[in-house]
Amino acid sequence: EPPVTETTAQRAIDGKTKPLGALGALEPCAIRLALLQQTLAPRIDHARICVFGADHGIAEEGVSAYPRAVTAEMMRNFARGGAAINVLARTNDTDVEVIDVGVDADLSALSSLRHAKVRHGSRNMLREAALSEDELAQALEVGASAVRRAVRAGMDVVGLGEMGIGNTTAAAALLSALTGRAPELTVGAGTGVHGEALTHKRDVVTRALALHGSRRAAQSARECLRRVGGLELAAMAGATLEASRHPVVLLVDGFISTVSVLAAAYMAEESAEGSSTLLRRVFLSHRSTEVGHVIAIEALAALSGRALRPLLELDMRLGEGSGAVLTVPLLRAAAAIMSDMATFAEAGVSAGEQAPSHEDSGR
Amino acid sequence: EPPVTETTAQRAIDGKTKPLGALGALEPCAIRLALLQQTLAPRIDHARICVFGADHGIAEEGVSAYPRAVTAEMMRNFARGGAAINVLARTNDTDVEVIDVGVDADLSALSSLRHAKVRHGSRNMLREAALSEDELAQALEVGASAVRRAVRAGMDVVGLGEMGIGNTTAAAALLSALTGRAPELTVGAGTGVHGEALTHKRDVVTRALALHGSRRAAQSARECLRRVGGLELAAMAGATLEASRHPVVLLVDGFISTVSVLAAAYMAEESAEGSSTLLRRVFLSHRSTEVGHVIAIEALAALSGRALRPLLELDMRLGEGSGAVLTVPLLRAAAAIMSDMATFAEAGVSAGEQAPSHEDSGR
Repeated sequence: EPPVTETTAQRAIDGKTKPLGALGALEPCAIRLALLQQTLAPRIDHARICVFGADHGIAEEGVSAYPRAVTAEMMRNFARGGAAINVLARTNDTDVEVIDVGVDADLSALSSLRHAKVRHGSRNMLREAALSEDELAQALEVGASAVRRAVRAGMDVVGLGEMGIGNTTAAAALLSALTGRAPELTVGAGTGVHGEALTHKRDVVTRALALHGSRRAAQSARECLRRVGGLELAAMAGATLEASRHPVVLLVDGFISTVSVLAAAYMAEESAEGSSTLLRRVFLSHRSTEVGHVIAIEALAALSGRALRPLLELDMRLGEGSGAVLTVPLLRAAAAIMSDMATFAEAGVSAGEQAPSHEDSGR
Repeated sequence: EPPVTETTAQRAIDGKTKPLGALGALEPCAIRLALLQQTLAPRIDHARICVFGADHGIAEEGVSAYPRAVTAEMMRNFARGGAAINVLARTNDTDVEVIDVGVDADLSALSSLRHAKVRHGSRNMLREAALSEDELAQALEVGASAVRRAVRAGMDVVGLGEMGIGNTTAAAALLSALTGRAPELTVGAGTGVHGEALTHKRDVVTRALALHGSRRAAQSARECLRRVGGLELAAMAGATLEASRHPVVLLVDGFISTVSVLAAAYMAEESAEGSSTLLRRVFLSHRSTEVGHVIAIEALAALSGRALRPLLELDMRLGEGSGAVLTVPLLRAAAAIMSDMATFAEAGVSAGEQAPSHEDSGR
């Protein structure tokens, strides 16, 4: 069979019984799926969200509206199936795998979790690097092995999710370290930090950046991740790097996971490999209201050399992979348009007069 | 059991294990479902899209990029399951019922369609009223009976869809007649009408309005629908009026269906009943790129006394109920959040310090 190209995929979608372009954002999505799976009959049958949980040393600095204990409490909630991600996965026919990569509590009794704890939380980045080189390598591998398990289980989509009190702070620091953008642009309210508490959170990130340096100062993306990242951030970066070796969709959630994917993309860019194979797998699910998300998306778009727009804009800011799981039906829909819709020729429908642009409904 | 109020529903959602408001637009949606179904455990199990097909006399004036024959051809495509709505309904676990309310062709051999033809297309509104009073009454009843069938079949959601060459012209004329807004604001590209053809389409609508009058000139919404509407527009209005008698979600698609719902809402407003019961059923699915959609949404919001925002913004403009069907998973998700998520108390998760506003992910 000849390879599927952008041109053949575009021609296939344009032959379907609908005005050209009338399915909007689903159409480029369908084309990307056809290219990734190298077939004009792409399928999204099986999807899994991998939720990585970890604690953060920086939480000692009072950067979250919730106590640190909530990370472990929410892991128990995941294990019992009561959290948003569990509920949303059930209504969207999607698997969930919850992985303890670094929660500061003994969760070993919870049999429905995956146990891969590297450390009881990252170190406080105001005093030292969040992770040692060895811890970073282990956390990257935890993410990579989650993707390999998902691929072995026949997943077409691997979605990223996370849980970790303090992780909007770590993600903001990492985003600033990766892009050179000021903390004013990357630090947001997280779970609900406003006013003086938000000023304090920005100050914490500013101090962490002063201590640890950035890519602007010629520090590698990997070293940024080690110094100001965290265990679940590293696991999601490892998952992203591994995903580039398989024809799977890597479905990004909100702010935290987008920053992790960005770190992985820079790591790939800094290697012989480059980032283009990786970026072909990346699908953005939703636009979070967390202030730094737009910065992370722009940076990823700049690497991709094309505009990136999340499919959903629902003003969500929960994490856990909740935006990713809600996007699975749209991926299934996009694949099905390409695979299952009749063409004008097959259906005996008259083509219109016009070309490239049309509108709503009717015809 | 005490009735479910806005306050009890809001309290229920705020008790779930997530930062307050972190599920964004899904939360008000969950609250509306709880109020409509009068339970704190709402369910969206069964959904059906009713697709009403009809031709338009105004299509003689060359207002569409597609020949009139396409209406019948697409009805055959629906019957064989090859159109976008069929494909999307399958991936979203949703029923489709396609109803011939006025296609200008003999479709009686197609057993998978519902046959309720009132007339072989509406009349040309540049010469006379699109429908007689009797035809309007019949078309309204076709829509009403579709909703009754859906309710008897146990549907929690009835979505609106349509197919009809020329129907963006009729919908634009109806929207202008209902709201008094100029054709420049209501007439758009439809399936792909640009430049001189678009100017011609606007001119056709302007002439139709001059002939038939508007609500501004004290004409009833029903009379506007009769004079410048069409058979599928009337059927969707009839479906909307009937939906107000049942505790179902009425899921609106794009431009055409929103205009039909608006006509029904004004009809209810002009009757002893008022429009509030009806408007409680109305859920907007997606924002179409057709120019007049925003006008129709604003008018509906003004009647509702609250902002209305479609859940999806995917730059779609296909009709057929394609936006509605893509929204069904989001309704299921919203219901499940309210029904199935654990509370902080149930899950033993510590509550945060803060109140009303938070951000993405982490915590």
